[in-house]
Amino acid sequence: MRRALRGVGASRGIALGRARVCQPQALAVEETRIEAGEVAGELARLHAALDVARAELRGLRERLHGALAQEVGEFLDLHAMILDDPELLQGLDDLVRTGRYGADYALKLQRDRLAAVFEGMDDDYFRSRREDLDHVIGRVHAALHRRDNANGAGLSGEILVCESVAPSELAEWQARGVVAVVTATGSPLSHSAILARSLHLPLLVNVGDLLAHANDGDAMMVDASSGEVVLEPSAEDLARYHARQAQIGRERAQLARLRRQPTRTRDGVDIRLYANAESREDVAEAHAQGADGVGLYRTEFLFLQRRELPTEEEQFLAYRDLVLGMAGRVATIRTLDLGADKADHTGLALRSEPNPALGLRGVRLSLAHPALFLTQLRAILRASAYGPVRILVPMVSGREEMLQVCELLEQARDGLAAEGLQVGPVAELGAMIEVPAAALGLGDIVDLVDFVSVGTNDLVQYLLATDRNHESLAELYTPRHPAVLRLLAEVFAFGRRNGIPVAVCGEMAGEAANVPLLLALGLRDFSLHPSTLLEVRKAIREADLGSLRRRSGTLLRCHDRAAIERWLERC
Amino acid sequence: MRRALRGVGASRGIALGRARVCQPQALAVEETRIEAGEVAGELARLHAALDVARAELRGLRERLHGALAQEVGEFLDLHAMILDDPELLQGLDDLVRTGRYGADYALKLQRDRLAAVFEGMDDDYFRSRREDLDHVIGRVHAALHRRDNANGAGLSGEILVCESVAPSELAEWQARGVVAVVTATGSPLSHSAILARSLHLPLLVNVGDLLAHANDGDAMMVDASSGEVVLEPSAEDLARYHARQAQIGRERAQLARLRRQPTRTRDGVDIRLYANAESREDVAEAHAQGADGVGLYRTEFLFLQRRELPTEEEQFLAYRDLVLGMAGRVATIRTLDLGADKADHTGLALRSEPNPALGLRGVRLSLAHPALFLTQLRAILRASAYGPVRILVPMVSGREEMLQVCELLEQARDGLAAEGLQVGPVAELGAMIEVPAAALGLGDIVDLVDFVSVGTNDLVQYLLATDRNHESLAELYTPRHPAVLRLLAEVFAFGRRNGIPVAVCGEMAGEAANVPLLLALGLRDFSLHPSTLLEVRKAIREADLGSLRRRSGTLLRCHDRAAIERWLERC
Repeated sequence: MRRALRGVGASRGIALGRARVCQPQALAVEETRIEAGEVAGELARLHAALDVARAELRGLRERLHGALAQEVGEFLDLHAMILDDPELLQGLDDLVRTGRYGADYALKLQRDRLAAVFEGMDDDYFRSRREDLDHVIGRVHAALHRRDNANGAGLSGEILVCESVAPSELAEWQARGVVAVVTATGSPLSHSAILARSLHLPLLVNVGDLLAHANDGDAMMVDASSGEVVLEPSAEDLARYHARQAQIGRERAQLARLRRQPTRTRDGVDIRLYANAESREDVAEAHAQGADGVGLYRTEFLFLQRRELPTEEEQFLAYRDLVLGMAGRVATIRTLDLGADKADHTGLALRSEPNPALGLRGVRLSLAHPALFLTQLRAILRASAYGPVRILVPMVSGREEMLQVCELLEQARDGLAAEGLQVGPVAELGAMIEVPAAALGLGDIVDLVDFVSVGTNDLVQYLLATDRNHESLAELYTPRHPAVLRLLAEVFAFGRRNGIPVAVCGEMAGEAANVPLLLALGLRDFSLHPSTLLEVRKAIREADLGSLRRRSGTLLRCHDRAAIERWLERC
Repeated sequence: MRRALRGVGASRGIALGRARVCQPQALAVEETRIEAGEVAGELARLHAALDVARAELRGLRERLHGALAQEVGEFLDLHAMILDDPELLQGLDDLVRTGRYGADYALKLQRDRLAAVFEGMDDDYFRSRREDLDHVIGRVHAALHRRDNANGAGLSGEILVCESVAPSELAEWQARGVVAVVTATGSPLSHSAILARSLHLPLLVNVGDLLAHANDGDAMMVDASSGEVVLEPSAEDLARYHARQAQIGRERAQLARLRRQPTRTRDGVDIRLYANAESREDVAEAHAQGADGVGLYRTEFLFLQRRELPTEEEQFLAYRDLVLGMAGRVATIRTLDLGADKADHTGLALRSEPNPALGLRGVRLSLAHPALFLTQLRAILRASAYGPVRILVPMVSGREEMLQVCELLEQARDGLAAEGLQVGPVAELGAMIEVPAAALGLGDIVDLVDFVSVGTNDLVQYLLATDRNHESLAELYTPRHPAVLRLLAEVFAFGRRNGIPVAVCGEMAGEAANVPLLLALGLRDFSLHPSTLLEVRKAIREADLGSLRRRSGTLLRCHDRAAIERWLERC
């Protein structure tokens, strides 16, 4: 029987398929014993599964880039660490070798042992670590199982229906043919949602009564854009689906035609679209979509996942490749932006902090390790000999820090000159504006910077004192807050008055729906992930800048989010 | 031989005494075995020591109030929890009963066992938990030892000299007669420093080479105000000490004369001094010093350290006592300001958060538990029948939240009226301004509030994106930042233009050195802990408001902290 349910779209797209209902399963394993002669084989089976689990985590890690790598990477690293924990591995081996347990049961016993340790601690933190442990053991268990039934795992054309989904599972489900995911709980701001968007996997969350109504094998239609799920769709539903599909196809084709078109408003004003990039693929995509340059090149990947710091030469080669790949367009290289919340296989020995978002991060960390910072600045300056380069400094909060950066930059330049190494004619220096005090104090650093780039992700988080990854605060965390918009307008106006280019490089700039807002507030330089560049270009080409600017007064007088949304609806 | 060393003053005061050098001691305990007949006695000895340790923690907890209770309380709670851990206790009993170990050695064994579990985790967080464990076991060990040598513990007139000092040890040392503490490491922003200031115990930190030069029993002179330590002081040193002591005595007597004096600037402008209070003692001290009322009454103590939420009646009685005690002066009651970083014996089941400072806290938590919030609002409204009451809402970020608060307040009023319960004629409603967006968006809530109070502790933390308890960021965390001062000036001016009283209730307002800054920026209402009220009154009486206001333009044009400090020096 047809039944329509509603949820919240967390990753756009439509899909049609069979429901694959996945109830949360406890690790209920029968006690199995093995013979002495089977020990070697069982150990091999167990270690093969451990290797599969490790490879899965590694593969998933490699598919992540940019902000995603930082946000989802942390617990993937934790899971990888658990998988390599000597105590865990030794315990498993002992259980199989000495206890003569089957691999599955050994996994269960070892999990129970460690879980008891965690539970004994009576503390939320430890309890959440226990969930990580369960997840890792579950992954190994699935790998054991998958080897046994290698042929039964194809899910092509299926829609995953579950209570909730962990970010690390999403990529796997997609690889196994899942075309969309629908969950009973969850938030569009969760890590899973961020990951689903990056994987272009439709995700609908918070669908009440989902598990009460969906049965394994039900025909199912999902439209994450409208928030609609239909079980056993009718002929009209299917017609609607196909019409929507055709429409999406036309929109894609239209977008593709914008690749070589200028980014110009209806009333003829040119806007610049820079790309946020990290990988070779991002840079290639940026070129393909016709970006004006790279507005934010993240350098953390050079420092993560390793125990030694990268050498100057290694960094130089990476930055030079970027600059050469830009073929004359500008490359904005952000200096190291690590903090205690980021994965810590860096040789930097970051200490855990009670509030890492307010901790030793960005330029604070670089200034606390001047030798490391100098190495990076030298590598960037050397790369600037190959094309136009801008240096972007993260987490600046005031004049003192910028003065220290200028001094180290001078020192790097002098050192390279003394050694006879080639340096570009000019490398512009800029500050990320993400600390509220810096946004309010641009006048204090204006003589020290050539450009600024507003990191709205962090700026909004600090302005609203709201962690942007906090699922229960999803309603509070929004750039569509009157105070945020007013401050942005002031920053853009300051840039115009002082001849300082101002870009926005937070996610706010990558959403086409925000284009009227940002243009009205005075933004001219967008920096965004190339995957949404064409949509943003389309929105800009449809905008009338003069009319938006005339309506900015009304926008700045909005007293709450609802008023801002109403303003946007009238665009 | 006389030797002068320098350090950083972390808690003011001077002291003269004998050095008591306290090297960090490992728990090196000889293996001791007991006979079967001694088991019962040894268990009794062990449990008596556990009880002493518990009582010490409880006693310390009770001496803490206000911000301190929140900041230091967290790990005291953790330590108390460890002491009650069934696994720990069972293990100790087994070691004595079955293993026939002496209590000391059982403690060591159990500590080593649990430490091995923590160490196996290879994670910073667990490692810091291990330090907590060491600390707790060390406390029980000391209690065992103290019972044996109850007479040898008097330290009267001694100055504690050590590498570092834990907050929970400070109160004990003071109770045992220590008159000052000098440490080789540490920061004036640490929890230990905050606690030392509250205990009025002189503390000098970061004294290089301290342990190389100080010997047990050395005569020692400490001036934490000037940062000076003198070992084996000369006759001139002693003369200087006594002169300083006499001067401090005169200053105290002078201050005491200000109790009944008006808080009026040299040019005749009256300033209001409200007290931050929590306990009966704070309120009594506020009266004794001549406060204009209570500007911030914290209500968290009603919710902490318990498993059940307080009833409306219990809250009503506490608030009514406060209001009656104010004898007609205003009592500003802040609604619950808890978050995941605060102790969690509240029945609220707060979940741990990656960034509690940016989490579900203050009014967010209250609005997430409307029944709890309504109970508190009803209790406050009922208390308002006994005298003038203002309701202060923490962590407001925008209009939506204030609207919800107004709605619940209306609901509470209607409910009480329907039940025929007495309510005061008026209870004013105000917002804490501590979220930057609220400071920037006062115009959006101006029609919903009767007054505001700026919480500079949190506001500065968010504006600078700097955790105020982060020891390595002590240089960054300061209200003396140009952007902070400019925003404060705007908030004060907004209040004046709109007839909304604006107070500052953060620690900034309790430091006499900040008086010229705050007066110049336009502040008229200070709210501060009564312990520094007289010093602030003295500074206000010495200030010429007209001249300060004329110099505010220069202040607001400062580009960095150094310029602000220079401005202050010229006051």
